[in-house]
Amino acid sequence: MVQSLKIEIERSTAKKEKPPQDQLGFGIHFTDHMFIIDYAEDKGWHQPRIVPYQPIVLDPAAKVFHYGQTIFEGLKAYRTENGRILLFRPRKNIQRLNRSNERLSVPQLEEGIALDALQQLITVDEDWIPTEPGTSLYIRPFVIATQPALGVSPSTHYQFIIIMSPVGAYYTEGVNPVKIFVESEYVRAVTGGVGEAKTAGNYAAGLKAQEGAKDKGYSQVLWLDGVHRKYIEEVGSMNVFFKINGTVHTPALNGSILAGITRDSIIQLLKHWNIPVEERIISIEELYEAGKNGSLEEAFGTGTAAVISPIGELNWRAEKLVIRDGQTGELSRKLYETLTGIQTGTIPDPFDWMVEVR
Amino acid sequence: MVQSLKIEIERSTAKKEKPPQDQLGFGIHFTDHMFIIDYAEDKGWHQPRIVPYQPIVLDPAAKVFHYGQTIFEGLKAYRTENGRILLFRPRKNIQRLNRSNERLSVPQLEEGIALDALQQLITVDEDWIPTEPGTSLYIRPFVIATQPALGVSPSTHYQFIIIMSPVGAYYTEGVNPVKIFVESEYVRAVTGGVGEAKTAGNYAAGLKAQEGAKDKGYSQVLWLDGVHRKYIEEVGSMNVFFKINGTVHTPALNGSILAGITRDSIIQLLKHWNIPVEERIISIEELYEAGKNGSLEEAFGTGTAAVISPIGELNWRAEKLVIRDGQTGELSRKLYETLTGIQTGTIPDPFDWMVEVR
Ligand SMILES: Cc1ncc(COP(=O)(O)O)c(C=O)c1O
Ligand SMILES: Cc1ncc(COP(=O)(O)O)c(C=O)c1O
Repeated sequence: MVQSLKIEIERSTAKKEKPPQDQLGFGIHFTDHMFIIDYAEDKGWHQPRIVPYQPIVLDPAAKVFHYGQTIFEGLKAYRTENGRILLFRPRKNIQRLNRSNERLSVPQLEEGIALDALQQLITVDEDWIPTEPGTSLYIRPFVIATQPALGVSPSTHYQFIIIMSPVGAYYTEGVNPVKIFVESEYVRAVTGGVGEAKTAGNYAAGLKAQEGAKDKGYSQVLWLDGVHRKYIEEVGSMNVFFKINGTVHTPALNGSILAGITRDSIIQLLKHWNIPVEERIISIEELYEAGKNGSLEEAFGTGTAAVISPIGELNWRAEKLVIRDGQTGELSRKLYETLTGIQTGTIPDPFDWMVEVR
Repeated sequence: MVQSLKIEIERSTAKKEKPPQDQLGFGIHFTDHMFIIDYAEDKGWHQPRIVPYQPIVLDPAAKVFHYGQTIFEGLKAYRTENGRILLFRPRKNIQRLNRSNERLSVPQLEEGIALDALQQLITVDEDWIPTEPGTSLYIRPFVIATQPALGVSPSTHYQFIIIMSPVGAYYTEGVNPVKIFVESEYVRAVTGGVGEAKTAGNYAAGLKAQEGAKDKGYSQVLWLDGVHRKYIEEVGSMNVFFKINGTVHTPALNGSILAGITRDSIIQLLKHWNIPVEERIISIEELYEAGKNGSLEEAFGTGTAAVISPIGELNWRAEKLVIRDGQTGELSRKLYETLTGIQTGTIPDPFDWMVEVR
């Protein structure tokens, strides 16, 4: 696609102090600049600009506050050993943003403009990309509905904004399996709803269950489908995979599951390695059965933040299922090392996933 | 409850021009002032204040933009013929706000503080309450999560804000029945989800279906349940009632339906009049059956905005059902006149619903 809009750049005069790389955390510190482009019904997307990181100023009646018409994305940029800057499959994020936009009646963004915005913003703030092993620059593009009007209808005005945050290593002492609570009371999404869109309401809807799991000593919940309450959908904000009898299984995209880009990459990697992989309906009963008869070999979540998050224990209706003695499996480890290796440029990228920022 | 916090008032110096009362619309014009109170984990709710209507200034990482942790309410104040100001069941709205807060992991607000805030804000802007028949002052309390952090977890900081908008008569040429499209593809909410909370994500999730209905010439959708796709839940942003064979039926509150305050008031009125009323599960098949055999006498939606909205036609899977020849029924009209009469002080209020603002 042709990128025709010129991005104005206003550089910040006062640079923020950068936090130490071993104290970054996730999404707490933000870089010196942000990208903004406005949308108005009569003008389309217009006035793309990079400006100093600054507050958003909105009328209290702006629709985002009342009716949640908002979409977001999350991706990472990495600094390689020889100083290059790599983005992991950014077009996939922009395409997913547009699918989310479509579901939430938000106007489409031109892929070329969004990609250009990413590249230019990263370039302006490139000294914010951390270099320590496991660190990266987390990028958060998002759209908000800004029209100040309380009628329930799609907004006539929007802003698409990109902010960036240097983030710390997810695993500081090696990849560690997590304990997951299988949620039976609350539901994240349902067929016909907005589960496959990356929109704010899905995350608000999950908070209560997540808090409950934490209180019981679990780090996240496993979501079951909203209709039958027995088919596995996701784990927290991650997609989920199970290795059973040598074959890797993951829930098929059914409209209520988010189509993770890490998920897609894992499937491609497995196929590349000739490891059988199946996208299908998986019930929690079936999984427990496999766990009990010894055929469940590994379980792991996948997502941009952790890349791979091995699951060491499940708890469903007070019945615990320990997976692989609570240890990280070989395949989980190999997938983690390969994917992070490709992302940071230490392993060749046979899939052409990485996009260099110049 | 004891109200212990003093509300600081900063009056606006420049007063806005008031729009003509026949051109008010809904939620487009706002009064001169707004109420704000802050929440911080270590301080609780603090610093209640009335300030000139002004933009909200938030860090772009504020959680409301990303994870939709936000709640709202809607209620109306009326100016009576002899100049009194009446609020319709405001405690009910505050209690529902707190139930929504609970579901979305937002801290509870003290009822006394919220009621005091409503009263004082209305008093400051009392010359904004329109007086023409059918007009009122629409009040929009809402809570937003303000912590600037991208981790998915409940916010540590919030603002509770109240804005107000003079709104025009809903019906300018008498109460008019609407045509409703029965939605079979999209779902608004599901058991275990957040359907009974008044939270932004529910409204974003409904936009697409609403747009589809408009395109087909219908003013709103009728939502079916997310599990069986056959039980009636709501109509647009209204609860729904059906008069069948002399008895009034409305879907029982099942966790995915919003507990409307108009709904509750209608049920009380019907009982007061000794008209049989049943809260129960109602399938769309049953409703169509009643429509075809002539026992469906009236259908109407209920909500703060329209009060009563008669339904003249349904369309379910391309099959049209015309109700009462598309005319407003007697009961619908009587309910509308009684409720609006009580609200505006022209009819006695045997239920003690109205709260006077002094
Ligand atoms: C609900 C949900 N599921 C799954 C994922 C994983 O998607 P991705 O691999 O694109 O990060 C995410 C995002 O991180 C998510 O928010
Ligand atoms: C989804 C939904 N259902 C029903 C209603 C009706 O509730 P109330 O009568 O309290 O206005 C509303 C709010 O107006 C609503 O947003």
